[in-house]
Amino acid sequence: MRKCMLAALRLNGFPCKRPENVTADEFFSAALAFPGNTCNSVGSAVTAANVEKLPGLNTLGVSMSRVDYAPWGVNPPHTHPRATEIIYVLEGSLDVGFVTTAGKLFARAVCKGELFVFPRGLVHYQKNNGGAPAAAISAFNSQLPGTQSLALALFAASPPVPTDVLARALQVDGGVVEAIKSKFPPK
Amino acid sequence: MRKCMLAALRLNGFPCKRPENVTADEFFSAALAFPGNTCNSVGSAVTAANVEKLPGLNTLGVSMSRVDYAPWGVNPPHTHPRATEIIYVLEGSLDVGFVTTAGKLFARAVCKGELFVFPRGLVHYQKNNGGAPAAAISAFNSQLPGTQSLALALFAASPPVPTDVLARALQVDGGVVEAIKSKFPPK
Amino acid sequence: MRKCMLAALRLNGFPCKRPENVTADEFFSAALAFPGNTCNSVGSAVTAANVEKLPGLNTLGVSMSRVDYAPWGVNPPHTHPRATEIIYVLEGSLDVGFVTTAGKLFARAVCKGELFVFPRGLVHYQKNNGGAPAAAISAFNSQLPGTQSLALALFAASPPVPTDVLARALQVDGGVVEAIKSKFPPK
Amino acid sequence: MRKCMLAALRLNGFPCKRPENVTADEFFSAALAFPGNTCNSVGSAVTAANVEKLPGLNTLGVSMSRVDYAPWGVNPPHTHPRATEIIYVLEGSLDVGFVTTAGKLFARAVCKGELFVFPRGLVHYQKNNGGAPAAAISAFNSQLPGTQSLALALFAASPPVPTDVLARALQVDGGVVEAIKSKFPPK
Amino acid sequence: MRKCMLAALRLNGFPCKRPENVTADEFFSAALAFPGNTCNSVGSAVTAANVEKLPGLNTLGVSMSRVDYAPWGVNPPHTHPRATEIIYVLEGSLDVGFVTTAGKLFARAVCKGELFVFPRGLVHYQKNNGGAPAAAISAFNSQLPGTQSLALALFAASPPVPTDVLARALQVDGGVVEAIKSKFPPK
Amino acid sequence: MRKCMLAALRLNGFPCKRPENVTADEFFSAALAFPGNTCNSVGSAVTAANVEKLPGLNTLGVSMSRVDYAPWGVNPPHTHPRATEIIYVLEGSLDVGFVTTAGKLFARAVCKGELFVFPRGLVHYQKNNGGAPAAAISAFNSQLPGTQSLALALFAASPPVPTDVLARALQVDGGVVEAIKSKFPPK
Repeated sequence: MRKCMLAALRLNGFPCKRPENVTADEFFSAALAFPGNTCNSVGSAVTAANVEKLPGLNTLGVSMSRVDYAPWGVNPPHTHPRATEIIYVLEGSLDVGFVTTAGKLFARAVCKGELFVFPRGLVHYQKNNGGAPAAAISAFNSQLPGTQSLALALFAASPPVPTDVLARALQVDGGVVEAIKSKFPPK
Repeated sequence: MRKCMLAALRLNGFPCKRPENVTADEFFSAALAFPGNTCNSVGSAVTAANVEKLPGLNTLGVSMSRVDYAPWGVNPPHTHPRATEIIYVLEGSLDVGFVTTAGKLFARAVCKGELFVFPRGLVHYQKNNGGAPAAAISAFNSQLPGTQSLALALFAASPPVPTDVLARALQVDGGVVEAIKSKFPPK
Repeated sequence: MRKCMLAALRLNGFPCKRPENVTADEFFSAALAFPGNTCNSVGSAVTAANVEKLPGLNTLGVSMSRVDYAPWGVNPPHTHPRATEIIYVLEGSLDVGFVTTAGKLFARAVCKGELFVFPRGLVHYQKNNGGAPAAAISAFNSQLPGTQSLALALFAASPPVPTDVLARALQVDGGVVEAIKSKFPPK
Repeated sequence: MRKCMLAALRLNGFPCKRPENVTADEFFSAALAFPGNTCNSVGSAVTAANVEKLPGLNTLGVSMSRVDYAPWGVNPPHTHPRATEIIYVLEGSLDVGFVTTAGKLFARAVCKGELFVFPRGLVHYQKNNGGAPAAAISAFNSQLPGTQSLALALFAASPPVPTDVLARALQVDGGVVEAIKSKFPPK
Repeated sequence: MRKCMLAALRLNGFPCKRPENVTADEFFSAALAFPGNTCNSVGSAVTAANVEKLPGLNTLGVSMSRVDYAPWGVNPPHTHPRATEIIYVLEGSLDVGFVTTAGKLFARAVCKGELFVFPRGLVHYQKNNGGAPAAAISAFNSQLPGTQSLALALFAASPPVPTDVLARALQVDGGVVEAIKSKFPPK
Repeated sequence: MRKCMLAALRLNGFPCKRPENVTADEFFSAALAFPGNTCNSVGSAVTAANVEKLPGLNTLGVSMSRVDYAPWGVNPPHTHPRATEIIYVLEGSLDVGFVTTAGKLFARAVCKGELFVFPRGLVHYQKNNGGAPAAAISAFNSQLPGTQSLALALFAASPPVPTDVLARALQVDGGVVEAIKSKFPPK
């Protein structure tokens, strides 16, 4: 552990305590013990235990998330700008995949107890391929990997990504883009 | 420069030469001197000078690209999984933007001689905002930054990302997804 | 993914394939789906999914292990020379702890669904604090973190660490050291 | 982007703002749009856009400079202690070179639109090889690469590098060293 | 050197000064010029010159220690969680060794003027193999490598590592563990 | 230690052995035990123990050198492109200094048993400030730091750095440059 010698200080922008005030609880989290609420439009929920939630992770280069999936729920395509992810299925069975920079999809089913790796920065997704809830644990080689949902980044940014840029990218007319944007209410 | 002592060897998977056979040309490229062909569906073209093209970049952690834009052409939303990008406008004027992991778009116009930064791994785009051709030079802090066009990753991967995953992500029905996919012919 | 262009090549000392021969299975492992055999002197078993077992991890900087614990079983004090570890309890409840370089023990109970962090390179252990089997998943920010059991490093190395060195370190006479060494038969 | 949660804080020694106060302008610079003043003893001028000038570069690991050259002007031999440089010629034609640790000079002409790489930390220079002004853009894989002009470091440091050290290094007598030092007035 | 612009600031948790107040003394230490006091239970003493003692080391990634050995004195088995060590013998002759993660001991005698390398994070020791005092200089590729004495971590942590964990690890009964613990008085 | 599984392989361009053939001698060097020959024009000699000489250093990120100085001998101004250096004086007393990128010289005397730090990539020198031989040990946070003597890089490169470039840099006429070049016979 790097030292942080005064209570008022921060290291990497995160608060730190006097060493004598640090306890084992700084390195502990119960946040992933319970399923997230998957009653939402995609049928999945991500609960993160990163340095924003768990200060003891600062300078240590790891973090974890729990993902819960309603039946047939989807963790939609997204990237982690600063980390590789390794996912372990706690319950159920998932269809997972990532797309390489050469446009190749690497996908397969991953069942309870199995694991899969999503290389740093690449687009990936998971889908519960069964009628019961599923859950997984993901670990990252960053204390703050970041997550960028591609649907939200493209269609729900604030201010919005210009419609003509998206229309050109998707080879559709602006009305299709506007229709998709309308699904994501402004924040 | 790290050494690579035998002609038959590779370092990081790239070929290397005996030191006595290395010349200044290993560190030189003329590939970015001429405009790419922007006669395509998005009206832009990227010409890369990375370690695959310029072996002298191996172990050095930098690379460059040239982007050309037809009038109103777009370099559609994409990410670089392994690098921050810094772009310098050679000709014309661009509307550029990136989306943070918090869903905020940072965008503005960037004119000839100005520069803009796209942080590592985040979704970003450029658009020629004028009626004349434009061009820019991009530099990366990786010898092989990788590029993932999001339209291609989502709608043109091979094999394809499942339609129901995309429909769920975009909150549209599968027909809309299929319609977009049909714009990108299989490779 | 870094590229590795010829089948006969290796990157970081591990084999690589032509890109067209890589499949999703390179990024998948079922090795952690089943409990290890804890019928041994410490009552625990570690099953690793690192780059030696899962070639797709090469250059990606993550790996995972499963630890199984017999009732009251112990994963004895050890270090990982090249990684921080984050552990998630799958079943049961563990007493875990690590010792800082200042000689302070950070310890607590960690129950099913909870997680704990062991900072890079520090001595740590886990103990099943219940009468039923327990299990945990550990993730590392290295594709090959390495594990050094301290009992084995000190008392079962081959050739052995000199008895007088250990006696001096432990402030005991050589007979005590020899008695401990005798518990660990030569390999 | 790493977070920096309070306006009063600094990360890596540079100021940071509340996220809600960050704008696209933090990632933008117009500083390289105009030629520097080359009316000086070497006939060149470097304009930097590094983290000292462009706070948004903090933690991002890139920066850029513009170099302008009067006819036959020289950007004299120097090093960047913390970065590899990749240079792109905007106008004119340059003679460029770097010296390896084995004492070999890699040099060649680089014309408008062409690029050249100067590996991390090695001595390099550029010279306008024509009678018209020239200009180039340089990118670095550091947000603060540093620049050490060798003539200034050797002959114009404050306090000065001892004359006898330089005389010994250059195999000349002290009078020659003093004569060169006299060209660089004290700051 | 990274900059640290205000006297009141800290970088990496360590204090920094205005550049105009920095002097050569920040990069200098006399702390290793004199033997440490080896009148202790192990017959050795380590004197460190790391970033806690030598602020100029901040961000520079190196540090040094001096180790003194009484006749037959031992620097007992320990690890450095964040650094490789390279040791140079100043006086006398040492028996040194480290244990790999595969449980193999690499050991040999190292005499005055010779050097030996202890790879990052691995258990290692030195012993004065002669009847006169010995001394060595160790360098590390970290400004704060940390040191974890294994005897102290296992038997003298505060609070203590549970006796049953150690007994299980060492394959001895608790009385043996308690006897060893009793040699290390509580701090 | 990273693994290197076949005798015929190389890692980072350096040869590796089957693990069963590795011995402690891979991590040992006697090369620094004896003074180098300082009967040369600068009155100093550097003996290196880097990964080219000591294969066990591969992937470990450290190396060491011994520098010997004749009375009043000089280790002339040079840089290490890839490492910070920390120097420990074995015998005698040195005047040492480095120049920052701001052109400030940090210099002082360093006596037997004292140490000094030269930050990564900056110009530095040492001079024996006494009439008896002196010696020092330098450690680096790179297994292959590289050394670039500035006198040799500027005046003795092969092919030579153009005289007009040097004349412009030093603000002298070409005859002075040619005179200095003539002191360094072609290799």
